[in-house]
Amino acid sequence: MKEISSRENPLYKELKQLATSSQARRKAQRTLLDGVHLCEAYLQLAGDPLMCVASASACSQAEAAAILAQCEGRRVSCILLPDALYHALSQVEQGVGILFVIATPQAAMPAQLTRSAVLLDRLQDPGNLGSILRSAAAAGIKQVFCSPGTVFAWSPKVLRAGMGAHFLLEIVENADLASVMRGAALPVLATSSHAAQTVYDIDLSQPVAWLFGHEGQGVAQDLLAQATQQVGIPHLGAVESLNVAASAAVCFFEQVRQTLRA
Amino acid sequence: MKEISSRENPLYKELKQLATSSQARRKAQRTLLDGVHLCEAYLQLAGDPLMCVASASACSQAEAAAILAQCEGRRVSCILLPDALYHALSQVEQGVGILFVIATPQAAMPAQLTRSAVLLDRLQDPGNLGSILRSAAAAGIKQVFCSPGTVFAWSPKVLRAGMGAHFLLEIVENADLASVMRGAALPVLATSSHAAQTVYDIDLSQPVAWLFGHEGQGVAQDLLAQATQQVGIPHLGAVESLNVAASAAVCFFEQVRQTLRA
Repeated sequence: MKEISSRENPLYKELKQLATSSQARRKAQRTLLDGVHLCEAYLQLAGDPLMCVASASACSQAEAAAILAQCEGRRVSCILLPDALYHALSQVEQGVGILFVIATPQAAMPAQLTRSAVLLDRLQDPGNLGSILRSAAAAGIKQVFCSPGTVFAWSPKVLRAGMGAHFLLEIVENADLASVMRGAALPVLATSSHAAQTVYDIDLSQPVAWLFGHEGQGVAQDLLAQATQQVGIPHLGAVESLNVAASAAVCFFEQVRQTLRA
Repeated sequence: MKEISSRENPLYKELKQLATSSQARRKAQRTLLDGVHLCEAYLQLAGDPLMCVASASACSQAEAAAILAQCEGRRVSCILLPDALYHALSQVEQGVGILFVIATPQAAMPAQLTRSAVLLDRLQDPGNLGSILRSAAAAGIKQVFCSPGTVFAWSPKVLRAGMGAHFLLEIVENADLASVMRGAALPVLATSSHAAQTVYDIDLSQPVAWLFGHEGQGVAQDLLAQATQQVGIPHLGAVESLNVAASAAVCFFEQVRQTLRA
């Protein structure tokens, strides 16, 4: 394990850049997984990180020490930092003090859409995207397509909200949703508060693609027009609409319910 | 309409205090509703605000002008601020420039729990609380009980995420959940990933109370032990748990589905 104690160390400066600048992360095609849960999920589901960085006090905590030991066993480069230097890298308050540097995964665009999927049009909020990824993965959905203008899926906030779901999914970013929809071999369903049919009325025991949009503006009109069908979630109270991540959870788990009953 | 142009004006200073300090809002038992949507919802569902504050440029925008006109018609005190002074009050970026000052609603503890309700144990995230309130109101649930340690329901962030749902609900804060549960005349259901029964297996066509907990730690053990039943949401993917607001949405709308089918 390599120890770094100076803020002027070139590797530390590089880590600091990655930790604080989304532009630096994009340019380097690297991202950071901050905290025990994300690191464990990555080791279990994805493979070896490029680097493991720990704070001095993390070494005495069982969960972090186990991750470090695994990394050293797999010959992953491990860096030890004094707590003060570590905390300048981390956005996790009261965290245990361990993070991975990984190559940002990039899923290839599939030739045709044949499995249940999620299409996201200009989704803005990192917490919403993370929650949608977590719900999608829990519902057994494997593919997610994010339009240009959607929040970056591998940003620290989205990763934190995703709780490891990222590593169970193929996430295609900057996807041309119109083209994905044209090539879809399954129904594309868009939720709408004006739809005549509800998610409870339609057959969800076969694969479908779900289309959700911008928190304020919803799905763009041209994409909405291309959807196979618009479906609603019936309300019993005088509320216009649900939060998009809540709406997605209702749709995904109605699909799970119907699949389990089929 | 009264115009204020100086930062030193005592009323402006008071507004600034309310806008920037949660302690000041609690002490004064006032809160701010920022933006067209919340103001419209309040006028429609709750009544008259204590005060309406608008930016100079808001007066030329149709939605804000309509709200101002309604307030003047109802003899609500209206304050006009130069844009720069207004923006120092507002947390809404690119907002239209209108806000209400209201008396923070305080629902009384009901004698007995007899209607469908939501019980929240130390929920931390404002976005999650807002989303849960919005889903609960849409599902026709009327009562929400927040334990001490739950994020303040009338904070600007929770209000923004709630999108007006607050005004359709009775929200009891600092509620002793153990005592609420002891007096419940209906089943209290807690979600758990270890539960044998799923939300799809149980009868939700009658009123129930839903119990959700802290984002990291879940529901406290003593409260969990007091719940009538623990129920799970079945997963098809290797994900430990859903986001708490996603989980709540799935539960509430399974209840809606069963109610509509009953």
